[in-house]
Amino acid sequence: MNVGFIGLGIMGSRMAANLLKAGHDLTVHNRTKEKAEELLERGATWAASPAAVVQEVDILITMLAHPEAVEETALGDEGFLVTMREGQLWVDSSTLNPSFSKRMAKEANARGIRFLDAPVSGTKAPAESGDLTFFVGGSEEDVSRAQPLFEAMGKATKHVGDNGMGTSLKVVVNHMLATSMAAFAEGVAFGEGLGLSQEVLFDTLIGGPLVPAFMGAKREKLEAGDYTPDFPLKWMQKDMQMVATAAYDAGVPMPLANLTKELYQAAVRRGHGDEDFSAIYEDMKED
Amino acid sequence: MNVGFIGLGIMGSRMAANLLKAGHDLTVHNRTKEKAEELLERGATWAASPAAVVQEVDILITMLAHPEAVEETALGDEGFLVTMREGQLWVDSSTLNPSFSKRMAKEANARGIRFLDAPVSGTKAPAESGDLTFFVGGSEEDVSRAQPLFEAMGKATKHVGDNGMGTSLKVVVNHMLATSMAAFAEGVAFGEGLGLSQEVLFDTLIGGPLVPAFMGAKREKLEAGDYTPDFPLKWMQKDMQMVATAAYDAGVPMPLANLTKELYQAAVRRGHGDEDFSAIYEDMKED
Amino acid sequence: MNVGFIGLGIMGSRMAANLLKAGHDLTVHNRTKEKAEELLERGATWAASPAAVVQEVDILITMLAHPEAVEETALGDEGFLVTMREGQLWVDSSTLNPSFSKRMAKEANARGIRFLDAPVSGTKAPAESGDLTFFVGGSEEDVSRAQPLFEAMGKATKHVGDNGMGTSLKVVVNHMLATSMAAFAEGVAFGEGLGLSQEVLFDTLIGGPLVPAFMGAKREKLEAGDYTPDFPLKWMQKDMQMVATAAYDAGVPMPLANLTKELYQAAVRRGHGDEDFSAIYEDMKED
Amino acid sequence: MNVGFIGLGIMGSRMAANLLKAGHDLTVHNRTKEKAEELLERGATWAASPAAVVQEVDILITMLAHPEAVEETALGDEGFLVTMREGQLWVDSSTLNPSFSKRMAKEANARGIRFLDAPVSGTKAPAESGDLTFFVGGSEEDVSRAQPLFEAMGKATKHVGDNGMGTSLKVVVNHMLATSMAAFAEGVAFGEGLGLSQEVLFDTLIGGPLVPAFMGAKREKLEAGDYTPDFPLKWMQKDMQMVATAAYDAGVPMPLANLTKELYQAAVRRGHGDEDFSAIYEDMKED
Repeated sequence: MNVGFIGLGIMGSRMAANLLKAGHDLTVHNRTKEKAEELLERGATWAASPAAVVQEVDILITMLAHPEAVEETALGDEGFLVTMREGQLWVDSSTLNPSFSKRMAKEANARGIRFLDAPVSGTKAPAESGDLTFFVGGSEEDVSRAQPLFEAMGKATKHVGDNGMGTSLKVVVNHMLATSMAAFAEGVAFGEGLGLSQEVLFDTLIGGPLVPAFMGAKREKLEAGDYTPDFPLKWMQKDMQMVATAAYDAGVPMPLANLTKELYQAAVRRGHGDEDFSAIYEDMKED
Repeated sequence: MNVGFIGLGIMGSRMAANLLKAGHDLTVHNRTKEKAEELLERGATWAASPAAVVQEVDILITMLAHPEAVEETALGDEGFLVTMREGQLWVDSSTLNPSFSKRMAKEANARGIRFLDAPVSGTKAPAESGDLTFFVGGSEEDVSRAQPLFEAMGKATKHVGDNGMGTSLKVVVNHMLATSMAAFAEGVAFGEGLGLSQEVLFDTLIGGPLVPAFMGAKREKLEAGDYTPDFPLKWMQKDMQMVATAAYDAGVPMPLANLTKELYQAAVRRGHGDEDFSAIYEDMKED
Repeated sequence: MNVGFIGLGIMGSRMAANLLKAGHDLTVHNRTKEKAEELLERGATWAASPAAVVQEVDILITMLAHPEAVEETALGDEGFLVTMREGQLWVDSSTLNPSFSKRMAKEANARGIRFLDAPVSGTKAPAESGDLTFFVGGSEEDVSRAQPLFEAMGKATKHVGDNGMGTSLKVVVNHMLATSMAAFAEGVAFGEGLGLSQEVLFDTLIGGPLVPAFMGAKREKLEAGDYTPDFPLKWMQKDMQMVATAAYDAGVPMPLANLTKELYQAAVRRGHGDEDFSAIYEDMKED
Repeated sequence: MNVGFIGLGIMGSRMAANLLKAGHDLTVHNRTKEKAEELLERGATWAASPAAVVQEVDILITMLAHPEAVEETALGDEGFLVTMREGQLWVDSSTLNPSFSKRMAKEANARGIRFLDAPVSGTKAPAESGDLTFFVGGSEEDVSRAQPLFEAMGKATKHVGDNGMGTSLKVVVNHMLATSMAAFAEGVAFGEGLGLSQEVLFDTLIGGPLVPAFMGAKREKLEAGDYTPDFPLKWMQKDMQMVATAAYDAGVPMPLANLTKELYQAAVRRGHGDEDFSAIYEDMKED
């Protein structure tokens, strides 16, 4: 298939590589060209602007950092939405607010362009190995059309509803991740304050029925006090801001999410922003 | 072994039955005698007061509802601590505050009586099948001495430190249970507010790496809106009060635990106290 | 002076009337013309679009409900920023986010247009009597220039810093208003739960050193259970969302503000959105 | 009148001195005798134990630091309740939990002894000048009987209900004090984060309708960064723990109070416990 790809960061570059590997024709663009070099060597075609990417493609995939970047790339000078043609399909895999995704869907549809919101669950490693999970919002027909691409980049596609629902599921998942990490950190700091050893606490909690399984992958680094980021704490704080905005838009009270957001904010303030988000534990111990 | 048992509620009666089954000689007491009848038929001996229980026993086990009950039974008129003899061992399996457990240890030791705090993880079903886990605080020697009893009633004994540490681990576990249930409830209510179906949310979250495994056992009942209590919400609220008190005693700030405590309190206020603690989800949806 | 005015709601129409009364030449525009009729009868001139308002004026004042309205009116089709000329002064009295005010300042300055953010403290009554307080951000020179207008509409002008600072002070004030109302409500509900009468609580707290003076004006209506809105609860919730956004932009952790925001959100959910924001007390009692 | 007084700390010694000044016969006791010396020089009589204080007195006043101290002094070895005679009146001015006050009332009444809970509003300076306010719970008759003493020590007596209601009003007042200080601190830290000067913020807020009047007395010291304690932060944290316990006993959800409690706890953890409770501002700025 002729595929366009905009946004070649840590995630995007690996996802694009898997598309090439699966035999698709790839046209790419990125704010800084150097991040595209490796893909170009492997056969991808460079486009000088977002608008230029979409000339020949069936499907365009975007993987950008925040709503402003998507808006600028889609609707700004040389934005791709302006030059896309009726019937082309835009798949946005960025993690955004549901209301923003719905607005983009509307902007696209008004021009006869199809839209899927398709954020991913998984970080660098599954992006590289093609083991991402896609949470997809949009029509059955569009999902089928993009399915070969999802299969090239991921191991599972969850079609969960209309436009905006993929993004919605993603913000729920972020909420669970952030709050359970913070609650675990608070619980272990509590236990240590009561005189229990970290070892006893980890042995009892991690791997048991009361703590999410993802904590298993954190244990070794927490024990070593190693907070090299898999997912930086400041991104988690930003994601929680998106959770809070989405909840505001939907009129849902979320006291735990909003307090958790502030706990991460305080940790950023105290210098943990560039560490892994599990450094919320370090911050709570320090307090 | 000659064993005394005080407190024959839902948990205690089942634990005592397993001691009988394992061949121990059992002397029992309960505030209301009728709860002892079944055990007496199976061969247990009735004692008319706490003080009377401990005449002949090597080890006394208590399984009571709250600190006041333990204090009254141990130190009140006809309390057992007054009549216990040097060298006897008191194992308290009640769920209490660490500082209270330490005070009981001190009261016991001052009389030459040995003490273990040994609260259990697990509810009615594992109490019946002998599959409880004991979190034990005390000396190595005393734990060894009580080990045959722990084995009769449970599948695992975690000796986690000195007196008070068993109870400490138990309050940490309660914290994890209460906060993760509340965060899950908030997350699902959030997702539904965004337009996702309960089915999609449960499929994505339950059984996955982001949500504690115990949620699997709740799914069916949550789907059915069935809040018949396995563990009543008002008990969870009471346990969170113990968490907060323990944190206060230890000087550990716990914003998430204290907010969660109030969410359960509000749910009690709105009539969910006698339902299962998973009814916090119902309360959040209603809001 | 030749003055333009856009936004003739409850506040704006009263402010504009005071400008007329002070003898200024007034050109007005509003989304719906009927709200302008009274002013037109008193001598104001109608302009058919935002762009048309600014042809002849020295100073333009805007008083709009939310950022989106300001952006559309300023930069949309027939937006006034496009037709304003170098040296004209735009005074925005809307209550907005500091970062939004700064962005508008930048948009104006890039076109050689002067900008002041000048939100007001005070509601309907002081708007009518010309007793508003203006919190103003911008240059000394521009403030002097607008001073005659501030004097026509208000009793005090607080020039508190550069562009964005007027709006900043306004969001701080909103935070104090929202949190102190919620804390008072929680305190009175608490006292009543302990068995104290509302009368004793109000007598002790209102008018005393521990509760803000504005509560005095609420007492009679709270006693009567009268929640006719002076300031609707849902607006307070929206203002708290602006507080949270401003705090996020500035990197300041605000646990109390974010929790308070959710308490108002929950009150909206339970049907108190159109009542006065003091209905947070009703909501807490009901719980 | 023959008056007994137990508890001669910062508050109690000053209250007792005012009783002497008003011409009452005073018998005193304190855990350490040296704090009584000045009163003894002025004519008070020393009693060697709580039990000894009450032999000849009409009314006994206690002013102690916490529930445990009251319980020990009243009911411990040589406790005064054991030796008090029918018809004597015990006035407890300690700041305690309502449920504890009610329990003491019950203990007293069971022995035919009268009881008033009468905690005070005001700190060191009004204690010295006789300008305290008494919040009193108990019977009309007992209040009348103690009125001459309240008048000697205070400027106002608020009889607010039955036993426990005086203490109840006191915990409500503590809640208002703690939350409004914390909200003010958060608001000012927020404003500073937005770029406003402390001076502008204080000028706008302190003395205005949105901030409690007691903040006026804090301004100078806050400006100087002087946190010499008028009321130590760790006492405020302890008082909030009493608020939380009272709310738990009464079944009232108090999310703001419980979060505020944790903010003070975190400030204690970071070393502000011995500073004035207004140091919560310093802590929030530091974050």
